[in-house]
Amino acid sequence: MKKKAICLLSGGLDSATALYSAVRDGYRPLALTLEYGQRHAREVRSARDIAKRLGIEWQSIPIRLPWGGSALLDGGISVPLNRAVDAMSREIPATYVPARNTIFLSFAFSWAEAAGAEAVVIGANAVDYSSYPDCRPEYLETMEEVFRKATKTGAEGGRIKILAPLLRMTKAEIVKFGKELGVPFERTWSCYLGGETPCGRCDSCLLRAKGFEEAGVADPLTEAAAR
Amino acid sequence: MKKKAICLLSGGLDSATALYSAVRDGYRPLALTLEYGQRHAREVRSARDIAKRLGIEWQSIPIRLPWGGSALLDGGISVPLNRAVDAMSREIPATYVPARNTIFLSFAFSWAEAAGAEAVVIGANAVDYSSYPDCRPEYLETMEEVFRKATKTGAEGGRIKILAPLLRMTKAEIVKFGKELGVPFERTWSCYLGGETPCGRCDSCLLRAKGFEEAGVADPLTEAAAR
Repeated sequence: MKKKAICLLSGGLDSATALYSAVRDGYRPLALTLEYGQRHAREVRSARDIAKRLGIEWQSIPIRLPWGGSALLDGGISVPLNRAVDAMSREIPATYVPARNTIFLSFAFSWAEAAGAEAVVIGANAVDYSSYPDCRPEYLETMEEVFRKATKTGAEGGRIKILAPLLRMTKAEIVKFGKELGVPFERTWSCYLGGETPCGRCDSCLLRAKGFEEAGVADPLTEAAAR
Repeated sequence: MKKKAICLLSGGLDSATALYSAVRDGYRPLALTLEYGQRHAREVRSARDIAKRLGIEWQSIPIRLPWGGSALLDGGISVPLNRAVDAMSREIPATYVPARNTIFLSFAFSWAEAAGAEAVVIGANAVDYSSYPDCRPEYLETMEEVFRKATKTGAEGGRIKILAPLLRMTKAEIVKFGKELGVPFERTWSCYLGGETPCGRCDSCLLRAKGFEEAGVADPLTEAAAR
């Protein structure tokens, strides 16, 4: 029987590629999406489509973060537009959501323990998005320690691996890797604004475009939008 | 201006006492309840009443843990009844909820960061409930480290204190402490079964009764039920 892995799936390029990577590595993936009131709830549709296409179990959990504190949550904070990619890594952006990955991983731990999964897969990336503190390797190591100390499984000597296969890749490398794995790029969603077509101006659109360009791969999502 | 503290408030005796302790220590408490589909959702009413009585801000966040794995979640797993108190600490009980305190603390971190709070208060207790792994001191220390590594505040040198004022108290000591602080015991709720009156047979009822008895204090909740 295949080892199970809980795969955090936002519906974006990175999480979809991480999920396909887990499939390639022989895991039976259980996909987990958190609907946290994000401005771009559009990505949840992408997550559902990707899970459905793979024919895997998918759970989508709605939560509320009514205290805001992020441009992705709070209508009063603007999503930065048209920034130079070089400027993005210098500071933690307004799109940072307080403790988001810790909330995501804690739900993943809960499911992992209940289902007897051996791993949690996350599309965290410390290169292009190094400005998000909860995408750094030392953070993920601490979360593995949390699992050991917090859970029945951990208390009984069990471990969980947090797999972040994209952690040290550039966006171009992620695009190439995703292409190899057969990730349906046209079904992923990256734009923070969450309109019907990608805005092309938010950090997420700009990094995606740069990644596809440097990889020499056409992005079927923006191509479809341009038609 | 008073320092803010996010106080995890289930509505039980311990979390109510921890909240009143934070008030005594000069914090401005913001109370946080997670409705996680617990069998004893009755306790959420208690949490609301306690917060209202103190006149403090209260957020109640509904979440779902559809994977179950606990007698408090899953109708198919029974809540243990009539166990000897000595037997309770020997193993992790069926009422353990996978990763519950990690989920609770991650929401608390999110609010703490958005509100600029200095502390998170939790009624965790490592004596009577030492069998829950996510109530141990070493677990809470690791979670402080998570905050340092996961958040913008932490990346900029800020810290959060996790205050667990009841961590090393017996249940009798908690009752005495709560009495000193003026905790409205009659408004707290402990029973896992969550009926209209406490069952008197689940671990939580039995530990509560033992605590009140050893403290030489009458429990107004069970007294009212007996009338």
